Parts: sequence; C-alpha cells; structure tokens
Amino acid sequence: MRTLYHYPLCPFSRKVRLMLAEKLLDFTAMIEEPWGGHKAFLDINPTGDVPYLVEPSGDHIGGSIAIVEYLEETCPDTPLLGKTLQESAEVRRLMEWFDIRFYSDVYQKLLYEKVLKRFWEARGPDSNAIRQGKKNIETHLLYITWLTDRRNWLAGDFFSLADATAAAHLSTLDYISEVPWEKYPEAKDWYVRIKSRPSFRALLNDRIAAFTPASHYANLDF
Amino acid sequence: MRTLYHYPLCPFSRKVRLMLAEKLLDFTAMIEEPWGGHKAFLDINPTGDVPYLVEPSGDHIGGSIAIVEYLEETCPDTPLLGKTLQESAEVRRLMEWFDIRFYSDVYQKLLYEKVLKRFWEARGPDSNAIRQGKKNIETHLLYITWLTDRRNWLAGDFFSLADATAAAHLSTLDYISEVPWEKYPEAKDWYVRIKSRPSFRALLNDRIAAFTPASHYANLDF
Repeated sequence: MRTLYHYPLCPFSRKVRLMLAEKLLDFTAMIEEPWGGHKAFLDINPTGDVPYLVEPSGDHIGGSIAIVEYLEETCPDTPLLGKTLQESAEVRRLMEWFDIRFYSDVYQKLLYEKVLKRFWEARGPDSNAIRQGKKNIETHLLYITWLTDRRNWLAGDFFSLADATAAAHLSTLDYISEVPWEKYPEAKDWYVRIKSRPSFRALLNDRIAAFTPASHYANLDF
Repeated sequence: MRTLYHYPLCPFSRKVRLMLAEKLLDFTAMIEEPWGGHKAFLDINPTGDVPYLVEPSGDHIGGSIAIVEYLEETCPDTPLLGKTLQESAEVRRLMEWFDIRFYSDVYQKLLYEKVLKRFWEARGPDSNAIRQGKKNIETHLLYITWLTDRRNWLAGDFFSLADATAAAHLSTLDYISEVPWEKYPEAKDWYVRIKSRPSFRALLNDRIAAFTPASHYANLDF
C-alpha cells in the first residue's frame, strides 16, 4: 500500500493529496507535524519533512516536486503536467510561481506567522509580516484573475497541477479566512470549480486541533 | 540563438546558468532586474520574472523548474537530473529543499533584506530577519555536511542539479560574505569542488553595481 506522510496545513502536502486523488490512486494518509520530529518518522525520513511518499514498490520519495514528477511518470493515466513540452513548461512555471513566490510572499507571512510560528519557534506573530502578507495575497489573486480571463484553467484549457498547486496554497489561507474572495470574483469562480471536484473533498474535511476553519471553508457555495 | 534573461544575484537564474554551462549549450545572457519592469522584457514575459529562456525553436519557458526539466528533456546529453527514477527523485528533493526552504529561510532573510529590499520596496532591512537568516544558514551548512559525509555529491555519487542548486543559492550569500565557511570545512570542501568547475566561471565574474563581492568570492583557493 502507498503511504503519504503529510500535514493538513502544508500546501505542498495538499498538492500531492490532490494529485493522488485526481489520479484515483489509493493511499494511507499519515499526519506528521513537520516541527514534531517523531522518532518513528525520522527513522523513515531523516529530515522529518513532509510530504513524504512511500510507494508499494518500496521507493521513498521526499518533497512535493519529486513526488509529482515521480507519480506522473509511474502513473501516467490522467496526466496533470500537460501533454506537450510547451504545456508541461507552462504547468511547471505556474507550480513554481505558487510554490516559491506565493509561499514566500503570502504563506510564510500570513499563515506561518498567525498559526504555525507558535509551534515552530514558540514566538508570537510579527505584525509587519502579516500586513505585508495581506497585501501580497491580492497581487496573486489579481494574477489568477488575469490568467482565468484568458484561459479556462490556469495553464490553458486543461485542469492541471498548476490549478491544484494554486488551490492547495490558497486553501490553507482560506482555512484561516485570509482570502478576500469578494474583491476577486473571477478568482473565486475558478476556486469554486476546483473546490467542487471530488479530489478536493478530503482537504475540506481537514481539521486542526485548536484551529476551527472559517465557516465558509468547506462550503461549496460560499 | 538561445537567450536567457537572468539577474546575477537571483539563485534560480544561477541554477539555470550552471545547467546550460554544464551541458555546454551556448546562450546569450541578458540581465533583467526583476523589480525593473522594462517594457521590452514585459512584452516578451508579462510577469517580468527571471529566469526566462527563449529557445532557438521559438519556445518560451519561464521559471527555473520548468527550464531545467525542459532542457533535460530536449538536451539529454550530460544528464543532471539523475538516470533512474530513484536518482531523479533524490535530485529533485534536494533542488526543492534549496529552492524553497533555503530560499525562504536564508536568501529572503539575509540577501533580500541586506541588498535587494531597497530596490524592491525602498525600505531598510529588518534586523530580526537578518539575525534569523544568519542562524538558519548554519542549519543548511550542517545538512550539506551530513550529506557529503555520506556521499561524494549531494544526491549521490554523481554531480547533479542538487549540487548546482545548492551552490547557486549559497554563492549569492557568499557574494555578500554571509557564509561561515570556516565553521563547516566539509561543506567548504564540497563548495570548492563546484567553484573550480568551468561552469561556475561566469558566476564568479558577476559584479553588481554598488555591491563589490567579498574578496574571497572569486578565489578558487579561499
């Protein structure tokens, strides 16, 4: 059986969960707090980082980029990285955009500061960073608006890991009600379409102890 | 002719420059300041982001992850992403480690704050972030020490994009003399080996106006 070690509010883990579900691949999901360092997990994965996938073949794959490329190659049904060189390049460009730029501009400044910092560093949030994160998320919603104005999905006319990655990141911010959807109706329309896909269901059921999600978080018609 | 738009202190651009040089692929290098937004560049690439590659075929590829996967597929000589599924997974895991984790833990807190923030935001550096960045870089040097203690190169017995990516990131910090090499001799030995590769030469010749690099920056025997 395939096992995925993940953390519910980790956007990289969410991307992999969406991919596995889109490809209809069964897996056992094991929650690991990335700051936790449980010995049993560190014995399997010395860095303690999630996502971490253990395949039925015995292969161990760490990190979301390695995992999505591995799964696309070994389970090519329902391609999610594009079918041509050019499509793949555009999907990967947008994955990187959200994994590096959104993560650093928004997730680290908003979700990390407001929710996770207390676990990692036992320190309180930095209000400057939060202010910057709230400003930065609007740039990214504008970019999604710009893209969906020109295309059916982010990377073109096909649903891909570009959409899954962007939605994985945004959904963590939506969990804490930090996405100003009302100001960006086109971005919201795109998110509603992803939210109603069967692959998204498990993410909507995520609950973190001590952090109840926003009331609209799991609502498909928010 | 192949054209790469890049910025000298952008670690993602550096990774692509190293890959092109390792594969002995000729290219014209065009410097773009990512905060600059030159109209001529925005006409080609609406996000203004670097690295951005224009291929002789006419293909445009944005983002370092899309570029390295594209080049590995279209120019397979001198493979840099591993030869087997397992090797590729380990190379990509380490690429992501440096591109996301090192970038967010160290580059954003140290190089961005000390050098680039004034251009992007016209604001001064945040001393808390700098302190954190100086602490974080040691964790990454320890990880390189741990890896090179077990392997000849970061991902195994072969030079790969894991090494190029880690060196690309570290070299930007080395430019501003923020790598405490003397405390991590094994990491330094590994870096010396990469620094003396012909592919690294162009990076050592980089000079940013108003920022002279550290005196040891281009020294192969520092």
